[in-house]
Amino acid sequence: MNYRDDIRVSLPSKGRMAEETEPFLAACGLSLYKPNPRQYAATIPALPGLTVLFQRPGDIVVSVRDGSVDFGITGLDVTAENGGPNGDILVLHEALGFAGCKLAVAVPEAWEGVNAMGDLAALAKRVDRPLRIATRFPTLTAPFLVRYGIPTFRLIEAEGTLEVAPAIGYADCIVDLVSSGQTLRDNRLKLLEDGVVLRSQAALIANRVALRTRPDVLDAARTLLEYIEAHLRAKGHVMITANVRGEAPEVITRRMFAQEVLGGLQGPTIAPVMVKEASGGWYAVQIVVRRDRLFEAVAELRAIGGSGVVVAPVMYIFEEEPERYQAMMEAVQEI
Amino acid sequence: MNYRDDIRVSLPSKGRMAEETEPFLAACGLSLYKPNPRQYAATIPALPGLTVLFQRPGDIVVSVRDGSVDFGITGLDVTAENGGPNGDILVLHEALGFAGCKLAVAVPEAWEGVNAMGDLAALAKRVDRPLRIATRFPTLTAPFLVRYGIPTFRLIEAEGTLEVAPAIGYADCIVDLVSSGQTLRDNRLKLLEDGVVLRSQAALIANRVALRTRPDVLDAARTLLEYIEAHLRAKGHVMITANVRGEAPEVITRRMFAQEVLGGLQGPTIAPVMVKEASGGWYAVQIVVRRDRLFEAVAELRAIGGSGVVVAPVMYIFEEEPERYQAMMEAVQEI
Amino acid sequence: MNYRDDIRVSLPSKGRMAEETEPFLAACGLSLYKPNPRQYAATIPALPGLTVLFQRPGDIVVSVRDGSVDFGITGLDVTAENGGPNGDILVLHEALGFAGCKLAVAVPEAWEGVNAMGDLAALAKRVDRPLRIATRFPTLTAPFLVRYGIPTFRLIEAEGTLEVAPAIGYADCIVDLVSSGQTLRDNRLKLLEDGVVLRSQAALIANRVALRTRPDVLDAARTLLEYIEAHLRAKGHVMITANVRGEAPEVITRRMFAQEVLGGLQGPTIAPVMVKEASGGWYAVQIVVRRDRLFEAVAELRAIGGSGVVVAPVMYIFEEEPERYQAMMEAVQEI
Amino acid sequence: MNYRDDIRVSLPSKGRMAEETEPFLAACGLSLYKPNPRQYAATIPALPGLTVLFQRPGDIVVSVRDGSVDFGITGLDVTAENGGPNGDILVLHEALGFAGCKLAVAVPEAWEGVNAMGDLAALAKRVDRPLRIATRFPTLTAPFLVRYGIPTFRLIEAEGTLEVAPAIGYADCIVDLVSSGQTLRDNRLKLLEDGVVLRSQAALIANRVALRTRPDVLDAARTLLEYIEAHLRAKGHVMITANVRGEAPEVITRRMFAQEVLGGLQGPTIAPVMVKEASGGWYAVQIVVRRDRLFEAVAELRAIGGSGVVVAPVMYIFEEEPERYQAMMEAVQEI
Amino acid sequence: MNYRDDIRVSLPSKGRMAEETEPFLAACGLSLYKPNPRQYAATIPALPGLTVLFQRPGDIVVSVRDGSVDFGITGLDVTAENGGPNGDILVLHEALGFAGCKLAVAVPEAWEGVNAMGDLAALAKRVDRPLRIATRFPTLTAPFLVRYGIPTFRLIEAEGTLEVAPAIGYADCIVDLVSSGQTLRDNRLKLLEDGVVLRSQAALIANRVALRTRPDVLDAARTLLEYIEAHLRAKGHVMITANVRGEAPEVITRRMFAQEVLGGLQGPTIAPVMVKEASGGWYAVQIVVRRDRLFEAVAELRAIGGSGVVVAPVMYIFEEEPERYQAMMEAVQEI
Amino acid sequence: MNYRDDIRVSLPSKGRMAEETEPFLAACGLSLYKPNPRQYAATIPALPGLTVLFQRPGDIVVSVRDGSVDFGITGLDVTAENGGPNGDILVLHEALGFAGCKLAVAVPEAWEGVNAMGDLAALAKRVDRPLRIATRFPTLTAPFLVRYGIPTFRLIEAEGTLEVAPAIGYADCIVDLVSSGQTLRDNRLKLLEDGVVLRSQAALIANRVALRTRPDVLDAARTLLEYIEAHLRAKGHVMITANVRGEAPEVITRRMFAQEVLGGLQGPTIAPVMVKEASGGWYAVQIVVRRDRLFEAVAELRAIGGSGVVVAPVMYIFEEEPERYQAMMEAVQEI
Repeated sequence: MNYRDDIRVSLPSKGRMAEETEPFLAACGLSLYKPNPRQYAATIPALPGLTVLFQRPGDIVVSVRDGSVDFGITGLDVTAENGGPNGDILVLHEALGFAGCKLAVAVPEAWEGVNAMGDLAALAKRVDRPLRIATRFPTLTAPFLVRYGIPTFRLIEAEGTLEVAPAIGYADCIVDLVSSGQTLRDNRLKLLEDGVVLRSQAALIANRVALRTRPDVLDAARTLLEYIEAHLRAKGHVMITANVRGEAPEVITRRMFAQEVLGGLQGPTIAPVMVKEASGGWYAVQIVVRRDRLFEAVAELRAIGGSGVVVAPVMYIFEEEPERYQAMMEAVQEI
Repeated sequence: MNYRDDIRVSLPSKGRMAEETEPFLAACGLSLYKPNPRQYAATIPALPGLTVLFQRPGDIVVSVRDGSVDFGITGLDVTAENGGPNGDILVLHEALGFAGCKLAVAVPEAWEGVNAMGDLAALAKRVDRPLRIATRFPTLTAPFLVRYGIPTFRLIEAEGTLEVAPAIGYADCIVDLVSSGQTLRDNRLKLLEDGVVLRSQAALIANRVALRTRPDVLDAARTLLEYIEAHLRAKGHVMITANVRGEAPEVITRRMFAQEVLGGLQGPTIAPVMVKEASGGWYAVQIVVRRDRLFEAVAELRAIGGSGVVVAPVMYIFEEEPERYQAMMEAVQEI
Repeated sequence: MNYRDDIRVSLPSKGRMAEETEPFLAACGLSLYKPNPRQYAATIPALPGLTVLFQRPGDIVVSVRDGSVDFGITGLDVTAENGGPNGDILVLHEALGFAGCKLAVAVPEAWEGVNAMGDLAALAKRVDRPLRIATRFPTLTAPFLVRYGIPTFRLIEAEGTLEVAPAIGYADCIVDLVSSGQTLRDNRLKLLEDGVVLRSQAALIANRVALRTRPDVLDAARTLLEYIEAHLRAKGHVMITANVRGEAPEVITRRMFAQEVLGGLQGPTIAPVMVKEASGGWYAVQIVVRRDRLFEAVAELRAIGGSGVVVAPVMYIFEEEPERYQAMMEAVQEI
Repeated sequence: MNYRDDIRVSLPSKGRMAEETEPFLAACGLSLYKPNPRQYAATIPALPGLTVLFQRPGDIVVSVRDGSVDFGITGLDVTAENGGPNGDILVLHEALGFAGCKLAVAVPEAWEGVNAMGDLAALAKRVDRPLRIATRFPTLTAPFLVRYGIPTFRLIEAEGTLEVAPAIGYADCIVDLVSSGQTLRDNRLKLLEDGVVLRSQAALIANRVALRTRPDVLDAARTLLEYIEAHLRAKGHVMITANVRGEAPEVITRRMFAQEVLGGLQGPTIAPVMVKEASGGWYAVQIVVRRDRLFEAVAELRAIGGSGVVVAPVMYIFEEEPERYQAMMEAVQEI
Repeated sequence: MNYRDDIRVSLPSKGRMAEETEPFLAACGLSLYKPNPRQYAATIPALPGLTVLFQRPGDIVVSVRDGSVDFGITGLDVTAENGGPNGDILVLHEALGFAGCKLAVAVPEAWEGVNAMGDLAALAKRVDRPLRIATRFPTLTAPFLVRYGIPTFRLIEAEGTLEVAPAIGYADCIVDLVSSGQTLRDNRLKLLEDGVVLRSQAALIANRVALRTRPDVLDAARTLLEYIEAHLRAKGHVMITANVRGEAPEVITRRMFAQEVLGGLQGPTIAPVMVKEASGGWYAVQIVVRRDRLFEAVAELRAIGGSGVVVAPVMYIFEEEPERYQAMMEAVQEI
Repeated sequence: MNYRDDIRVSLPSKGRMAEETEPFLAACGLSLYKPNPRQYAATIPALPGLTVLFQRPGDIVVSVRDGSVDFGITGLDVTAENGGPNGDILVLHEALGFAGCKLAVAVPEAWEGVNAMGDLAALAKRVDRPLRIATRFPTLTAPFLVRYGIPTFRLIEAEGTLEVAPAIGYADCIVDLVSSGQTLRDNRLKLLEDGVVLRSQAALIANRVALRTRPDVLDAARTLLEYIEAHLRAKGHVMITANVRGEAPEVITRRMFAQEVLGGLQGPTIAPVMVKEASGGWYAVQIVVRRDRLFEAVAELRAIGGSGVVVAPVMYIFEEEPERYQAMMEAVQEI
């Protein structure tokens, strides 16, 4: 009863992921405009033509899969669980850098000898009934248990806080999402060492058919990837300007290339610095370095006689083409 | 891996029903004691031996059904949906008086001629594919649709706000819980006149096997019913004391029995009132009347010469045996 | 463009008075039912046929005056200011017991010799331009100033926090509502001793024409007065039961009437108390006393040999007819 | 520089005890009136002449001890710690029923064999330096440690969360206030079985000299005790009215006295119930029973043919004289 | 009674505009310092000599008009409504970019044929009494209605939520401020297509006489305009640095000028980039572009062989003189 | 019972200083990672190997002094009060720029002639008992009073709001921390003009022995100082880029050096600007200036023909070595 020609992206409507998605997009330069806090639709003024919807993370996967929406930001966990077997969903960006957690096996602290999946398999063999495992991720959990040799098990699906299941007694252990692990400790559960079923974080997903058949959707995908990648790259870098004395730009550059961090860069921009005293020979070098190498870079600049090291933030760094664009183009063409 | 001999009751852990359950129990004289807000267990000091757990309403039904817990306070909606076919769950009290809502069919406002189930059935026959209906209550929805002659339909299960489904396009209409109906209006949906699948409110449920096999659980059931019924009865009544002049108690009583509201009562308590002036002949009558007949009762008392009408609150009214106790005893015996 | 036959009562929509009105009505037994927090209408299940609207206190006066609504709960201050000259509004109950404040004159603390209205008048005569007085109550303020002999003045109407006007300089002093006086002190203002223009609290008002022409509105007025008066009376009283030893009820009563507080009551209810020991001669007396005389009553009961003094709350006390009902009936008939 | 003739009571200004004190007093009928939330003084309209001050619990003890204030509501813990040796402070009521906690010894969970004070003493003897114990209660802690045979120790006073001291390393274990014990568990500490130095709750204290020398202060003490005791007694009781059939009041009473709970009461009030049918012989009995025996009382009433059992709340129960009044009078005279 | 020589600026004290004004000023580099949250005055450390006051938006207009304060940030709506006829107020900056809304005509949804001002005029002619229009902006509303040919109307002034007026019945339609329109929809009202009386946002206003007579106030005006304009301009731009390969700066520049966005700029800064490989010929170009053309600029840079495009934020962009300064100077001299 | 080889820094756990410390560190590039909000430990991902603890400001001083932790951020006030006499604590950075306040003497407003320390000394001599002074800083207060010639005094230590002490009467005046002074005014106290015992703000402190004996702690100190100083320096500066026309860089530079603000800088970076028109001769100059001289710098740039002045934020400015590093190295070596 409905056919549409707008482009749609679904964002998480509730929970921690919802709280982090909007600031993430704003940081990418894609601030939302919500005319009415109680309705389901918003827009992104920087991307005219796009309609933003709000759904639960799991429902986003369903909507993208069946083509009701074209793009979604949701967790890798629910994408893997509900994505379906036949590739209707493409993961355009698998690491947006927030909402990280892992899907993992937790057992009662009281099971003293059970610390790894092998121990759990051994225990499962000793008891005379199937291990009862509460989870909201049966599709991911079942093959994982099989892989680790759990002979028989029964998956129990519940909607709420699974951590209480073993204490209440309707399950023996659980497979659930864990971030800090505190809820587990509060309920006297412990993780198994190698019991991580999946590491998850927020991802950008899209409907494959829409990408293949609608050029405007493909364009939107490229634009989203541009903004997101340029932002994520910028987040990890800073711009440094330093004054260095030297006879000539080439001399200074040579000294820089002899350093470890500075030597790895493509090349500094160099401009003369005019000083009051006649002594001259000062140059300003400008480089972009990874934020986590900042201190080393400063030390190396000092080592080659640099001073007045000024560090400034950057908003975006664009490379020649979005990294994940080619991968997407190939995936879209498959079958 | 676990066997237990404590008595357990599960209460809602989240949402509106959770907020109302604790004050309801406190008003019944069954205040909770939660030593640690972050753990799953509490106690009711007035009912020693009982462990209180907190779960989502749907999980409560599952836990009571499989016997992990003995009692639960949850909604009639999830009890009917998830209770299972074979009578594992007994509904001990079906009207605790809070968390009322209804499970109902809602369609887009734009479907102008569709206002009742018959209209929906007619529409469903006209379109050439199954009607897609989003719901979290497939068990209750399917037979309801069949009863109203919907020929073919597909139930779509989603976890979040179903009201957006028709707008997003992954369903044509929905069957969902409705209280004030505002969310429907915000999303441009409307209820069908005769589209109420179920009227729900909070209920007290129990595991039938536990009631049949454990005398301590049966005792607890009786105590819970006592407290709850005595409170609910008291909530609807007040105690009235009035001074009435008359030659003798019998005369006053006769006048009272001639009234409509007063005449329906079992009988007033009568005690003499000592007055300063010799004129005498005053009596205090004390009666318990329904709160919603209070004004009529006051008018009738005035009509027979009553004055100084004092109304006082009551906490509990106990009848000879909890009303629902006999019903429970019979249901427990059924196979 | 509209004609109506429902009965309407307007309640404050904002501020401290709004917060206190709903609990007050609930305590009267008139709880509100608001199906939708974002709309303007509610109902009172105990008074079917009544529509409840929410408006600002000043707008309530306007609506009752022009007959758009029949009843209102609002402040005496805005009723006096905006009620209009020709008696369109009747004040049915002038002391609902909440939202108390006074409209009063405040001047800068720095005006050292100015402590009473006389001082202000003297000052006003000394300066060579009209005194500038900021107020939101010009109708009440002007005659008050005239009465105290202020020769010339200019009233300045502002919408916000008037207390800053003298400091900013757009007025010399203010006439404004004061409750605790702290905002005045924060802004270095002080009240004048005899500068109280009006003492205000919440009141029940009605449209006179509606009362005269619509019997259903008159009925509603009576019911509202019944509930409100019975509640306010009960709020100030408690019910006492005490065991007193004595040869006969008459003896005990005589001793009671010899006391000050107990002697002022109409008469105690007396019933025998059955005691284990043969010694007998105990009676339970039950009386209703003013809450602020409770301690004296207890002391007097002890003085005549009373013990086991139990004090219980009361919800309503109904007298033979609502006190203010007759006054209303007379006022309604006035031209 | 100051002398005063008002009567002063200090209440806790902060923390959990502060939050519970005001509702407790209100329930006693002693609601506070705070004209200005930012100043230090309030009044109790029901007790004219009394000034209410707000201080930290520990400062209240100091102020009552030195006579700056006459009464205080504070914890038994700080009273015992800071009360001083020479009886300047009298505890008028030692169990106001809120703010319960205990001062207890806690050691790292990792100290596996250390579970009781004896184990701690043994450990202290094994190590070659004094045990370092962080506490805010050195006066109470030192003799307790000596009593349990700890040979040498060093008390370390800190202002904040002592629970982190062992982990940070500036103490070996702690003596601190514990309510739910959760903070201990979060910091991997455990209580010693017999390590309770003091059980504490809110108490009413007074300055002994003021009681001895100022009759108005003594009067205030009596009034405070009256209100508080009558409230606390009422909190634990309910009033029951039941209809019982019997030939005569004496017969019914005899049957009641044969029961366990009912038999322990001083005596029921009895009044005839007028019934429509001629069969007659119904009486209303009214009794006051302890709230925690309510169910037994109802069962016993049913057992003797009672029905229509109505339970009502009570606000105060006054005995002939405040229980603790005589004790206070004696203590005041000591020395 | 008061004369002053400080410079004063009034800011909104309440509501959405107040919440946005302080962050706006902080973003301009003009953070407020409020020593006492409860008093009316603050300062701006970056502008010594200025006193900041807080008033309601409407009162700000009054204070600036009568010269009690020199500058104000308030809405264009209240400025137009209350600014007075004789040019006492100058609008120095009419578009501060926040608190946007429009003053518009809204009528009941039920008026089916009424969708534009012409329809309203036609309706007004058909009814036999003046159209009653509730508004808080009579000065702006009256001429607007006249312009659209409404023959007779009565303006009803109310203080609160005007949206309920048509439903309650004390007005037929309203002229009120609208931002998202949701409150209208909740109250079943709709906007008329051409019914916008005024588009409003936050503005900087000043007292004309103060600007003309006090050089220090004129200086402050210039400084305020400098900060505000430099911030607003910066908000809409970013700084881009990119590495481009080319034989010489002139060659690269020529290629840039052939592009659309890049070609519109005044000119890039160019500096050599030193690269490790001998191949050389790299230059860094730095340009400032409008934020909403960022993507096009990046695409154009790529098109001419640019890579490593780094985008950085800017705080201020100063042009040669504040744009609105000259306009102010002329307006000040008028009359 | 414990020995450790990790490096520890303690941060304030409560109050205004705690709220400001975390954003301060984040601005320095040292964001905290708190896996569990209820435990005492966190880490700083940018400084691996460091453990972060949370304590009250006073306890931090104790822990750093006794070596339980190596570094602390706390107030100068508690450091001076509790730091101990023998130099166990080194103040590495004494001005982190937040949590500013002063420790000062306050007396009742009613003491009219007492406005300075001399007046207080005179008063103290007139009264016949020691002045009672409430304070939480006896170590700092005592010598200060002696220095100002107060003959005899008694220091009274209290835990809570000292401001009420004079009103309650357990002290005559107080020495306490003051930020805005509003609490003083609320309690009718006033500061003495020269009564400032100490000006305090947040500081970075360290344990001297740890610095001397553990090279890893010394390294951490250097890194902390680097981050903190580079951030604080950056906070006070901005980077300016402007286009200036001139025949050659040297000409432009000469003009700049003739200005006041621009002339004080070490030297601008200069790069050519390519313009469309042949007229040429434009250069971009880039300088870093103090934020509070920004306006003057802009004016000077305009004066020498500059335009397109763009101001950008900076995150860090590193000088050749942390300023306070040398001072620390010397202090560490002192005995």
